[in-house]
Amino acid sequence: MLIREATPEDWPAIWPFLHDIVAAGDTFTWDRDISEDRARAMWLKEAPGRTFVAVDEDGTVLGTAEIHPNQAGPGSHVANAGFMVDPRHSGRGVARALCAHVLDQARTDGYRAMQFNAVVETNHRAVALWRSFGFEVLTTVPEAFDHAEKGLVGLHVMYRKL
Amino acid sequence: MLIREATPEDWPAIWPFLHDIVAAGDTFTWDRDISEDRARAMWLKEAPGRTFVAVDEDGTVLGTAEIHPNQAGPGSHVANAGFMVDPRHSGRGVARALCAHVLDQARTDGYRAMQFNAVVETNHRAVALWRSFGFEVLTTVPEAFDHAEKGLVGLHVMYRKL
Repeated sequence: MLIREATPEDWPAIWPFLHDIVAAGDTFTWDRDISEDRARAMWLKEAPGRTFVAVDEDGTVLGTAEIHPNQAGPGSHVANAGFMVDPRHSGRGVARALCAHVLDQARTDGYRAMQFNAVVETNHRAVALWRSFGFEVLTTVPEAFDHAEKGLVGLHVMYRKL
Repeated sequence: MLIREATPEDWPAIWPFLHDIVAAGDTFTWDRDISEDRARAMWLKEAPGRTFVAVDEDGTVLGTAEIHPNQAGPGSHVANAGFMVDPRHSGRGVARALCAHVLDQARTDGYRAMQFNAVVETNHRAVALWRSFGFEVLTTVPEAFDHAEKGLVGLHVMYRKL
């Protein structure tokens, strides 16, 4: 598996699984029926943000991640990041590899910490993965996510220093 | 004091004090040298967001507030809000009146809670005001704000149900 910066040419490979993940309404606080144009603008970050893809030896896109300042101006030394793995390629360590890469890049880019604002508390795999990378749950905003199947569940604020 | 929805014609009265507040770098996580065009786009919200102004009997703009969904899609039932009071009109209860108005409007618009993601912990007046309206500090993200005078200070996540 290789992780590299994404290019506009990667988008057609990202959009199908990104669309399905967002439409499922169980992990992302995005409009479930978001347009492709809007999704592309949100996911393919402009500098200082970055977007990555994880590809296998055939060049197949397995997953993608992005990093950006969590706040602007006096809050821009704390990073935020997002991760999407194609469900057809789950169980291969793609999210773990992307997370390790994003943490390294964030340190290189001079961020001092990383914060996730809205980790769905029922997304147990993601929560466990971030915990294994040293993230802690600072708080859980109650009933802040309207889960497609489970109704109102909490959103974790997760954080680690870099 | 009257609170009403802001119009594009209010912007020239908002920009001078909004600019000064942002440039001071002690309360907002905005770029301190933000352009006027960018600031206008960020402050004058599109639906379902709303922007308000508080005006006195002469029509002078004393302060402004905005409300918008804190997250999109499955997180859009939690509101976020922002407040700016012209320092020349502080001490007249403008922020208190704006907060009461925004809470009422948020209930009317169907939001179930309100969350602030980044309240600078040294902004004691604001923190005390939100507390007086029933907001609690869910957590404080350490050293997440590079205060112009005090260096790295924390950012409160504040929350209340509606």
